[in-house]
This record gives sequence, structure tokens and C-alpha cells, in this order.
Amino acid sequence: MVQFSDIASELERQAIELPSWAFGNSGTRFKVFGTPGTPRTPEEKIADAAQVNKYTGLAPKVALHIPWDKVENYSALRSYANDLGVDLGTVNSNTFQDEAYKFGSLTSSDKATRQKAIDHHLECIDIMHLTGSQDLKIWLADGTNYPGQGDIRSRQDWLAESLSTIYDALGESQRLVLEYKFFEPAFYHTDVPDWGTSYAHVSALGDRAFVCLDTGHHAPGTNIEFIVAQLLRLGKLGSFDFNSRFYADDDLIVGAADPFQLFRILFEVVRGGGYAVDSPVAFMLDQCHNVEEKIVGQMRSVLNVQEMTARALLVDRAALLAAQNENDVLGANGILMDAFYTDVRPSLASWRESRGLPGDPIAAFKASGYQEQIVAERVGGAQASWGA
Amino acid sequence: MVQFSDIASELERQAIELPSWAFGNSGTRFKVFGTPGTPRTPEEKIADAAQVNKYTGLAPKVALHIPWDKVENYSALRSYANDLGVDLGTVNSNTFQDEAYKFGSLTSSDKATRQKAIDHHLECIDIMHLTGSQDLKIWLADGTNYPGQGDIRSRQDWLAESLSTIYDALGESQRLVLEYKFFEPAFYHTDVPDWGTSYAHVSALGDRAFVCLDTGHHAPGTNIEFIVAQLLRLGKLGSFDFNSRFYADDDLIVGAADPFQLFRILFEVVRGGGYAVDSPVAFMLDQCHNVEEKIVGQMRSVLNVQEMTARALLVDRAALLAAQNENDVLGANGILMDAFYTDVRPSLASWRESRGLPGDPIAAFKASGYQEQIVAERVGGAQASWGA
Amino acid sequence: MVQFSDIASELERQAIELPSWAFGNSGTRFKVFGTPGTPRTPEEKIADAAQVNKYTGLAPKVALHIPWDKVENYSALRSYANDLGVDLGTVNSNTFQDEAYKFGSLTSSDKATRQKAIDHHLECIDIMHLTGSQDLKIWLADGTNYPGQGDIRSRQDWLAESLSTIYDALGESQRLVLEYKFFEPAFYHTDVPDWGTSYAHVSALGDRAFVCLDTGHHAPGTNIEFIVAQLLRLGKLGSFDFNSRFYADDDLIVGAADPFQLFRILFEVVRGGGYAVDSPVAFMLDQCHNVEEKIVGQMRSVLNVQEMTARALLVDRAALLAAQNENDVLGANGILMDAFYTDVRPSLASWRESRGLPGDPIAAFKASGYQEQIVAERVGGAQASWGA
Amino acid sequence: MVQFSDIASELERQAIELPSWAFGNSGTRFKVFGTPGTPRTPEEKIADAAQVNKYTGLAPKVALHIPWDKVENYSALRSYANDLGVDLGTVNSNTFQDEAYKFGSLTSSDKATRQKAIDHHLECIDIMHLTGSQDLKIWLADGTNYPGQGDIRSRQDWLAESLSTIYDALGESQRLVLEYKFFEPAFYHTDVPDWGTSYAHVSALGDRAFVCLDTGHHAPGTNIEFIVAQLLRLGKLGSFDFNSRFYADDDLIVGAADPFQLFRILFEVVRGGGYAVDSPVAFMLDQCHNVEEKIVGQMRSVLNVQEMTARALLVDRAALLAAQNENDVLGANGILMDAFYTDVRPSLASWRESRGLPGDPIAAFKASGYQEQIVAERVGGAQASWGA
Repeated sequence: MVQFSDIASELERQAIELPSWAFGNSGTRFKVFGTPGTPRTPEEKIADAAQVNKYTGLAPKVALHIPWDKVENYSALRSYANDLGVDLGTVNSNTFQDEAYKFGSLTSSDKATRQKAIDHHLECIDIMHLTGSQDLKIWLADGTNYPGQGDIRSRQDWLAESLSTIYDALGESQRLVLEYKFFEPAFYHTDVPDWGTSYAHVSALGDRAFVCLDTGHHAPGTNIEFIVAQLLRLGKLGSFDFNSRFYADDDLIVGAADPFQLFRILFEVVRGGGYAVDSPVAFMLDQCHNVEEKIVGQMRSVLNVQEMTARALLVDRAALLAAQNENDVLGANGILMDAFYTDVRPSLASWRESRGLPGDPIAAFKASGYQEQIVAERVGGAQASWGA
Repeated sequence: MVQFSDIASELERQAIELPSWAFGNSGTRFKVFGTPGTPRTPEEKIADAAQVNKYTGLAPKVALHIPWDKVENYSALRSYANDLGVDLGTVNSNTFQDEAYKFGSLTSSDKATRQKAIDHHLECIDIMHLTGSQDLKIWLADGTNYPGQGDIRSRQDWLAESLSTIYDALGESQRLVLEYKFFEPAFYHTDVPDWGTSYAHVSALGDRAFVCLDTGHHAPGTNIEFIVAQLLRLGKLGSFDFNSRFYADDDLIVGAADPFQLFRILFEVVRGGGYAVDSPVAFMLDQCHNVEEKIVGQMRSVLNVQEMTARALLVDRAALLAAQNENDVLGANGILMDAFYTDVRPSLASWRESRGLPGDPIAAFKASGYQEQIVAERVGGAQASWGA
Repeated sequence: MVQFSDIASELERQAIELPSWAFGNSGTRFKVFGTPGTPRTPEEKIADAAQVNKYTGLAPKVALHIPWDKVENYSALRSYANDLGVDLGTVNSNTFQDEAYKFGSLTSSDKATRQKAIDHHLECIDIMHLTGSQDLKIWLADGTNYPGQGDIRSRQDWLAESLSTIYDALGESQRLVLEYKFFEPAFYHTDVPDWGTSYAHVSALGDRAFVCLDTGHHAPGTNIEFIVAQLLRLGKLGSFDFNSRFYADDDLIVGAADPFQLFRILFEVVRGGGYAVDSPVAFMLDQCHNVEEKIVGQMRSVLNVQEMTARALLVDRAALLAAQNENDVLGANGILMDAFYTDVRPSLASWRESRGLPGDPIAAFKASGYQEQIVAERVGGAQASWGA
Repeated sequence: MVQFSDIASELERQAIELPSWAFGNSGTRFKVFGTPGTPRTPEEKIADAAQVNKYTGLAPKVALHIPWDKVENYSALRSYANDLGVDLGTVNSNTFQDEAYKFGSLTSSDKATRQKAIDHHLECIDIMHLTGSQDLKIWLADGTNYPGQGDIRSRQDWLAESLSTIYDALGESQRLVLEYKFFEPAFYHTDVPDWGTSYAHVSALGDRAFVCLDTGHHAPGTNIEFIVAQLLRLGKLGSFDFNSRFYADDDLIVGAADPFQLFRILFEVVRGGGYAVDSPVAFMLDQCHNVEEKIVGQMRSVLNVQEMTARALLVDRAALLAAQNENDVLGANGILMDAFYTDVRPSLASWRESRGLPGDPIAAFKASGYQEQIVAERVGGAQASWGA
């Protein structure tokens, strides 16, 4: 039986990147509801993200989205972040909001449009050099809505060509991570719809190209932990975009819809070395807080990941392996469930306090008055954000 | 074997309502791409809709959406429409774009918010008296994103109460149709998620309350034609919102994703009396044209419904019944498929011409120069529309 | 904050019926793997079921399946069961294994076949009088594999007629519960595919007809707890068939695939009065143990239901209601999650011991030597079971 | 506009392998219904398959399933087939019906079990040498039903090792095709669940290893034609198992559930060179005829593939490409739909007659008296088949 004390030291290295855009307003095609206190600048987003780290100790990096987080001076932005105790992380490109990309970006049948999209990524790489970011994350909204609208096959070839140009421009310590998504915003075909497609492309690119797995981007019923295990085995799992879903890409708080699935995913991460000291896997949130508070929503999210990681680490793997080898189905399953049903929250609160953090980070944040302050101060202005 | 000549007269009574909002811009949460020539006023939407009817003879009514289509003078709007050869149809309420409805409208836990939503429907009924509309269509975006967020059970009771108040305000020749939807914009629970819920409510309301079936609002794999058959049997199918989907509520052109499904649906409509002279079923489109031309998109849609209706009418029902009674599985299936695979397009073109319509309505519209004209004229202004 | 001691007395009345067929071999269309010790007679199934009750105190009834559990003398069977500390429960009819039902049973286009199926149910009612069973459960495998194969609409009418005849034959204290299922064994249309259809039929039948909700019989993504809340509200939830699934009707151990979903379902049961003293809701398992031990599998299942019921009862409903009314999304969700994440296992073990039951029922059963005994004794013979 | 006469010559080379097991009885876990005249020996299955080829000219090969089709003398079996005008095709292994494989075969944690499964494949290769078969098709039922039951990651490594041993034993002109399947018979994880996994394995094996795409083996909503296009691009599409589905792996007649999907798949096959003279893609059926006649069911199936191939060939690809390059969404879609809606049946009937085949193969078969003859002759005996 593994005890919390056995795993406490492993929790030390947990770090979950926050997406700057999670602090902005978001919504559905029907409505983006506003929230008082929503950031109006990249700095305000970073300030909010820093609050999450301040109270949880789990979120030392903030991912940027270009052009939403474009600033004049990235060194100044980085210093601003550092002063708040966080660093800048993954740079996310955007090829879905320019009118030019209505029919595709890196996969467009028009060479000039492809070049425009490539140039955008080259600009992102420039920014990465300034921000010290390691990863260029590409999520491609490209696809078609009607059969026949585009040539699926040629688009793959154009995609390969575009990616190759971008990959070649990366610095030596930089990586390209290619995200896949089942559908939306395209409703007939998506150019990178599944892990197999992303894997085929990053394999062709080279050693510094990896797959990004967004937990909300799969067909109904997909066994995500299997994909985690497979990509770790193939050495191509680059990063996670955590969130949760009941239906499609709902972008709910990670762990909210199916906590047991999150547990199984994190168990395979641990099992496959993805949580090891030298793991190439970056952990990141990618969520929307359409109706709930955004800062507390992010806090709840990183705590969910931490709690589930603790449960995953608590699995008695020696006993599990023995039960598996005996084909003791219920015994093996029981060992896994035993860890899942263990209430790690009291142990984590104590452990947090032992590290100078509040036992209840959300309560501490609420007591701080920060939320009331930003509601009062942030009046006027406009967001630069996807759901704006 | 049924011949086209046997069914031609039945095609005469086909009428498909167009949604005013299909002519406005629309998109996804990621981006609403603009289209030159998009209407800026309810009148311009009606003018575009009238073009569809002019060339196809299939779309004599335009459904309104309140408040998007609010005008000072509804009599004038009606006259405007009539002058263009169309009439005003179903009035659709909107309870998803006001900040007040962030956590619910007719199902809100707050009595004042429920009353506000009820009052909106009473206003819609007032408008119906002015426009001569028969149907008040309620699609409710209400729901929650997280387990525990709302009290599912109480919300049903509040919904029943709200609907009852609205129903009581209807005029004697007016009807209430209640639409259901599997999910979106709510991502955990939706207050009217399935036909069973809609049926339970409209049954409780009374004889002039019906279910509205939107073909894109079901769980994956749902047999929609079964629901059509069941609701017709129960006497509660009030109207259709036609569109098509590959994934979720994609709102693509009806028949585009699965033409055979559209055929099966229309076959059950015919089989169950839903296409009979005295049928209570209203046929309507509810679509988005995110990347394609909007007027031609609507033309394509009504033609798809017409072509599939023709195929459904061509089914040799006597032979089918005989094969079914003999448990001749392949024979019965073959009779259905024979009608589906029949290319009715040439016959329809001739029939159209015999009625003074163009054989190829889309080509005729394109040749008319209307599209070029609105692109030139409609500059400036803003749409009032959901995807605006 | 609700404490375990506050809810302990409510756990006293928990009773979960076991299906006799869960103790028999089962499998998929590809293979039914054998297990040593599998029962060969109804008596042996009851003996195994009694073991589950002996160690858990949760399973006082055994549901029968006719004809699999047909015996000469039902009074003797009942006495046999009573001597082992259990009683006979729901009678399940079987209309899917007779060659006559290849194309339908209660919905067959052939009147004689319908009558044969009706007669089978009348025989079941006769047996119910002898066994003292309250519920006749009808799960109908009827449906078609190809469009056109059957007349969907007429089949509904035949179904209504057949059910009415059966309903009229019920004794005054007997009930009819009609189960629905999304698909399988029929692959195009199923005659009772959803709760709406079951609800429409039982509503037409009368006060003693109810819906049976099998947790594995829904389309992907269906919010089952919503259906629970709705059916309780409508007064038509008659019984549960518990099991779990990742894909289709997998019939796995209840709670194994998505424990949080089981929690949400049981929370709505509690919320809606379905667990109240006078509740009409019967709780039952309907599972297959294809690769795992069967008796322990059933023990695990009733314990899962008990543990989740305890968690559902632990929800602080006053605090939840307050948070809901304030639209405190994360607060309300947090109250629900707090109960879910509470590890009730130690408290339940103590409580069990206080009632003279083993703290760890599975360990106690394993130590008893019963399994080894039946493996040794039950050699030869054949099962009468669905997966046989 | 492409005319039928332009494509007629391309239809000449169409060849679709029939699965011997499609002529045997099959069913679901609930019941295998019997059919008079069902074959009792491999020879009788081949005789039935030869009938399909005799009347359609489309099915010159019969795939074998080992051990179901094991015979003493494979040369004699081949001669028997040749005398009936057909040849023996793909050899399918079976690792799901031996008690030894309850917990896995090529992925078993037990080395001896893996070796047993490997040996079975080596035996299949021996048979291939005798039958002249080119392809060894591996569909693996391996997987687990409960989280924790097996070590997902190690099983991948064992699979890779097992496959490598088998691959190395292939003759120089032989190929290995690895099929993937979303789920069933395993209900939690499947060891080869998606095309990505199959692709990763066959890429590691070498040039003569390919992916087999079964059209019924995907998650709901999966865009199958995309996978076709991708695998053709990657040079790894080895074969098709055609069938159709509404829900899961329903194994219905190909084209029966979604004819438009079959059209789109075949269009991508043509577009990507999969139908070219030197294409490595083998076309095969893999279906069950649970309730319908089996020989006619197979005839209907190959005719469906032929009709859809004709429609796919009729697409005006030059016009399509032009419309795509202009981003004319509705125009491009219309060009595709035009081919789909073309009724190729009369042209195909004439073409068939011009080649000495009956215009209506099914009618000709029915008139032949073959079915009545086998019903009379094939009495007694037992099938060796999966649904037996």
C-alpha cells in the first residue's frame, strides 16, 4: 500500500501552464456573457494567472496566444511576469480569425494564403526567442463544411509542406507541437482530426516535433489514456491541453465531467514516464469559463490535476502488476479504484501548508479581496480574446 | 411501380418556411466570417428570402426571430413581404442573448427573470397577431455547465409553469411549438434535451401545443425517422426545423450530410400523414451558411427537400407492405432503395417549367444579377442577428 | 456539512435485486468464455445470489428470467430461496430467443406471433402469482436491421395493443415495467428505443405501468440523471437496471466505467424522492461478467451502489440550494464534488460491522471457501442462460 | 460532364473478395437465428460464393477464416474453387475463440499464450502458401473490460514483438494487413483501436505490412474517407473490409446504412489512386446476414460497391478542382452530388448484359433455383463459423 508520504516529493515538480485566454471572456456562437473584472490587456491576464500560482504553487507559466497577446516589448512583458512570480510559456498561433483563412490557412489551396499563415508562425517563433518560450503550439482550425468543398488529399500535402517550412525555422531548443481536433469549427472534414494524423506529420518533421493532446478533442467514447500510453511509447507526446467535456469540445474545467477519466489519463502518464523528471511532456490547461468565475475556475482546475496526480501516484503498481499477471480482473481493477477513491484532499492541504501555501487556496484567494479590486478597477477597454 | 406523373400533383402543396436569420452572417465561437451583400434590416432579409421563392416556388413564408426582426410597423412589414410574393411565418423567441438569461430564462431560479422571459413571449404573441403568424416557436437555450450548478428537477417545474402562462396567452388559432436540443449552448444539462421532455410538456399544455423537431438536435446515432413516426402517431408533431449535421448541431444545408436520412425522415412523414392536406406539420429550415453563399444555400436546401419528398412519394407502398408482411427483408429494403436511387431531378425540372418556374432555379437566380446588385448596394450598416 | 452518522439510518433500507442470469456464463457474439463453478440450475443461481446477500446485506431478492429459470414447482423454489435468506423478485420475460421472434414479437406483423408473445407474458404473470413477484419487466429486442424492413408506425400500434392485453391480465398488486434500449440486437430501428417511447406507452396503459431505466441503454452522451429526474417528476420511474458502459450496452459492473455518473444518478434519485420510504422505484442489477468472477462481481456491484448512495446522501442539500439560488456555479459544483470525493469506505465498513456483517464482504466471501466448493462440485450439466 | 461510357472500361477491373463466413449463420449475443440451406463445410461456402460471382462477375475470390475453413487438402479446395470460377483469397486468423485467449492473444501477458497465437499465424502462412493467398489479415479481439485489468503499455510492446515474429515468417510475395477496431468484444480498451495504432505498427514492420480499414470499426462521427485519403497518401492502405452500420459494428450490408458515405469513401479511393491498375488496395466484404438471405445479401453488397464506384468515377474531377480552387463551396459540393444522384443502375444493367452477365443479377439468381436446391439438400451437419 502506497502512502501519501511516499509520493509527496513527486508532487513537488508538478507544473501546469495556464492559458492567458482563459481569463478573458468566452462563450458559444449564441452568446458571450460578460464578467466584471475581465482583463483588458496581456498584462492583466498575466496578473490574474499569477494569482493562481500564488495560492496553489502549481502554475508557474502563462501560455501566450498570438495575436491576442501581442505587445510592443516582450522583454518587458517577461519581466512583468517574472516580477509576479511566473514565466511566459508556450506560444499559440492563431489561424482562425483572419478573413484570409475562411477556407484554410496552412492547408489553403491558395499559395499566398499558405505563405501568410507560415509567416504568422515565423513571427511566433521570433516572439518565442524574446519570451524564452520552448514550444510553438499549432492548433489548426482548417477544414471544410461540405463534401467536395476541398481536396482532402492535396490539403494534407500542403500541410506537410507548410509545417516543414515552419519546423525548419525553429531554434535548436525550440519544439513544434501539433494539436489535433475531431471537429469544430469545420463540420465536414478537419485537416488534423486525430492523433494518427498529427503523429504522421510530426514523425515526418523530426525529433523536435511532437503531438499535443487536448483532452476534449476526440470522438465520443475514445479511450484517451490509450492514446497517452501509445504516444509515450512512440516518444511523441509533447504536451497536454487539459479540459473536460460531456459532449463535444465543451472546454469545461478539467476533471469536472469525468474525474475518473482524468485519473486514468494521469495514471498512464505516470506509468509511461510522462511525469518523470526528464519527461518531454508539458502540461497545460485550455479551457473556457463561460459562466463561472475565471480565476477561481483556473485554481479549481490546477487543483483537480494535482489531486488526480496524487491519486495516480498512489496506485500500488507492484500489486497491480501482480494481479494483472494472474489475470485477476477484479483484483487489478480494485487496486486502481482504491487509489481513485482515496480522499487525498486533507493530505494535500497539510502538505501545501508545510510548503508555505494556504491549505485551502480558493478560500485564501477569496479572502484576499483581489477579485473585488479588479472588478472595481477594470472598467472600460476591450479584450483581445477569442471569445471577445 | 409509382411514376413521377402519379405524384406530381402532391408536390404542388409543398411549402417550406425560410428563417430570416439564415440570410445573415453566422459562424462558430471561433469566428463569424463576413459575406458581402449580407442584409442589414428585416426587410433586406425578407427580400432575399423572396428570391428563393421566386425561383423555386417552394418557400412562401419567412419566419421571424424576435428581437432580431423587430420593426416599428409589422403591418408594413407584412405588406412589404406580400408585395414580394411571400408571407410572414413562425415567430421565434430569443431567450439566449440577454445578459439576464446567463443562468436560465423560463427555467431560472429567479422569479423575476422567469417573468422577464415570459413577458418576452407575450410580446411575441402580440407580434404574431400583427403578422398573422400561426406558430410561436420556443427553443430554449437553458441549461447548466456543471453538475450541481442548477436544480434539474425544480427547473422542470418552473418550465412547466412558465410554458403554461405563455400557452394561456395564445390566441385561438395560434399554436405553441416547443423545440428540444441535445446540448449547446449548455454543456452539462439542457432543460429540454429530448423529444420525450418536449412531449411531456406539450401534452400537459393542451391541444394547441406541439413538438418541434430540429433534425440536428439529437444524440449521435439517433433514429430520427422513428421519432417522426412516433410523434405523428401521438398527434404531437408540430413542425420541423430542417438542417443537417455530421457531428453536433452543425446547421449545414438540409440533406448535405446524409441524404438517405432525409429520405427516410420524409418517407415517415408521408407514411404517417404528416404531408397530408390537413396535416398540422409545418416545414421550416433552420440553418447557417457560414462559408457558402446564403441565398443559393437556401435554394439548394428547399430543392433538396423537394427532391427527397418526390423520392419518398415514389415509394411503392403497396409492394412495400407486401414485402414487409412476408418478412422479405431484402425485398422490402430494395423497394425503398429503388425510390431513393431514382434520379428525380430531370422530372422535377420539367414539372417546374410546366408551372412557369425555371428548370434550374439556381442557374436562373445566378443569371439574374441580384447577388451582384446587393453586394454593390448593401454597404455599411450592421446586422441584427445571432451570428452578427 | 452532512456527516456519515446523519445518513447511516437511511442506508438501512437499501435493497438491490440481483439478476439470476448474472451468475451464468455470458459473452459477446464472438465467444462465451466458460467459468468453472457456473450454476447449472435456477437453484444454483439462487444459491450464489444468496452469498452476495449473506456478506453484504444488500441483496435480498433475486430476479428471475423466464424461460431460463422455469421450474416445476415455484413454491418450492421460493422456499429454497427463503431458506437461503433471499426472496424471488422481478420476473423478466424473454422474447428474443425463440425462432418465431426473428422478425418481432409483441410488434410482429403476424398476429399469431404477437399472440404467442402475449401468451408468454401471461405465463409470466401466472408465475408471478406463484413466486410473489411484484414486477413484470418487459425488455423488447424487437426492431429491424434495414430501412424498409418493417413498418415502424404499425409496429407501435401493435405494441400498444399487445401491451394493453398483458397489462389487463396483471393482478391488482402487480406492475408492468417497460424497458427501453437504444439499439442491439436490432441495428436499424428498435421498437422501444428511448424513454419517451416507453413513457408514452406506460402512460397510455395506466397507473401500474412504469418505465424501467437501464443505465446502459442510451445514446452516447445522454444525460441519464436528467431522465431520472424527469421520470420521477412524471411519477413513472418504476425500476433501474444498473450496469455500466464505455461504448454501447457493455453490461459492465455498475460504477466501473463512470463512477461520477453513478453518483449523479443516485443524487437525482435521492433528490426526487426515488429513495424515499414509499418510493415506487425498484433497484436491480443487469450485468454480465464475461471475464471476471461472477459472485465477487455481483458483490462489487452492490457495494458500488451502496457507496455511491452514501455519497449522494452526504450532499449538503441546504448549502447546495443556497449556492444554486445565488448562481454560484463553482460553489454549487464544489458542494456536490465534496460529497463525491469523500471516502465513505471506512465508515461503511464500521457500519457494516455494527450490523453483524463483515467489514470487507469480498474478503470474507473469499475466505469462506464457497467458490472453491462450487468449482469442485458443479461439474457437468448445462446452463439455461442467455449467454450459454 | 463525365458519361458512363467514359468510365465503363474502368469498371472491368473491379474485384471484391467475399468472406466465406458471410454464408454461415450469424447473430448477436442474444441469438443466432438459423437459416435453411446454410453451408456445413468450407466447400459449401465456396459454392455459395461462386454463385455471387457467377451472376455479378464482381467477386472472383473467397477469403478464408482459419480454423473455420480448415481442410485436409488445400490444393483440392483450391481446385474445387477454381472449377467454380473463383479463387481463394485472404487468409484471416482467429485469436478470439480459443479459451486460451480469454485475456489476450498476441498481447497476452503470458509468453506461452503469445507463442500459441504466433504459432497460429505461422500455420496460417503455411496455408497461404498452399492456397496461393497474398494477404494474412489480422484482426485482434484483444483488449480488456476494466481499467487496470491489463497493462496497456506493455501489451503494445508485446504486440509489436508478436507481429514482428509473424511478419518475418511471411513469404516474399505475401503481405500482413493489420485491422483496427474501436471496441467489441473488449469494452474498456482494445489493443488496436484506431488507424493510428495500426499505422504505427505496420510502419515499424516494413514494406509489406499494411493497414486494413473495416468501415464499421470507428467511433461515432468519424470521417472515414479522410482516413482513406491519409492512408493512401502514406502508402499504407492495404485492404478494405466493407460493411455498414447505424450504431456500432453492426456488420450490415455495405451501403445500406449510409450510401452517401460509401460514395465519399470510394471517391477518395479513386482520387488517391486506390482504384488504379497497380493499386495495393484489396477490396473485401466483411458482413453478417443475421436476418436476411445470405447469398442475395452478398450479391446486393457487391452491386452496391459497383454502383457507388461507378458514381465515384463519374465525378467531373476537372470541374471539381476548378470549383475548389475558386472556393466555390456550393459549386464544388454540387459537382460531387451530381454524380451521387445519377442513377447508374440502367447503364450498369446494359453494360453487364454486354459482357454476358444478367442485367438483373439478383433476379437471375432467384430464377435459377439454386436457393431451393440447397435448402433441400443441406440438412443435418453443423457449421464451423463464428456465429455458429
